[in-house]
Amino acid sequence: MSMIHHFIGDPSKNDYCWKGVQAEVISTEEVKDIAKHILVGPEDGTPSFVMRYFQVPVGGQTFFHTHAHEHGMLILHGQAKIQIKEEWSDLSPLDAIFVAGGDLHRVVNTGNEPLGFICVIPKLGS
Amino acid sequence: MSMIHHFIGDPSKNDYCWKGVQAEVISTEEVKDIAKHILVGPEDGTPSFVMRYFQVPVGGQTFFHTHAHEHGMLILHGQAKIQIKEEWSDLSPLDAIFVAGGDLHRVVNTGNEPLGFICVIPKLGS
Repeated sequence: MSMIHHFIGDPSKNDYCWKGVQAEVISTEEVKDIAKHILVGPEDGTPSFVMRYFQVPVGGQTFFHTHAHEHGMLILHGQAKIQIKEEWSDLSPLDAIFVAGGDLHRVVNTGNEPLGFICVIPKLGS
Repeated sequence: MSMIHHFIGDPSKNDYCWKGVQAEVISTEEVKDIAKHILVGPEDGTPSFVMRYFQVPVGGQTFFHTHAHEHGMLILHGQAKIQIKEEWSDLSPLDAIFVAGGDLHRVVNTGNEPLGFICVIPKLGS
């Protein structure tokens, strides 16, 4: 069934949240306080892909990892560097990124504000 | 192979473009001057989904149509209404939408500025 998740946050306060979307906070030894919001996903009945929003705090980064599925990413706010295999690239809002399956990668928040981006994966990779 | 398409436009001028991405302008009897940019897609080697940016001019709308594949959408800028089957909903920036396969739908720009949104589809629907 089709579904709309209205944005109910306030970007001026780095408050990103959506109606009907429960954020999950990921903290491990490797990453701290990454917020994950599934904007379009299994609960909506999506058959083939999942669209997530991630927020990485100042000084934080995502897992440095690899997996068989690919990522399609779009930076929404903040400044970042991405490492894909051996190569580092600067990222700014609206930059679009394809991370191929199997490529080791991580995203580092290099700015003074939280970093936010959209990350799409195939459903099998969710 | 992984790929980055850096944003090289100027949002303050409603200029949205990306390095290495060729925009396509769609004009038919039904829709006028819709710009489509494939941000992550077959040319990048994506195996399972395609991430596109669409810009709809003031007064414009997308096709009122249905198809077997689903959409995952995120409004980036502008104001809109979406019709899904019989129901209309207002949309603002950062609203996330899942349009299920088979649901008749269209997006109408209701604002005084161009409307821009991300639309993800499975690769078979591209």
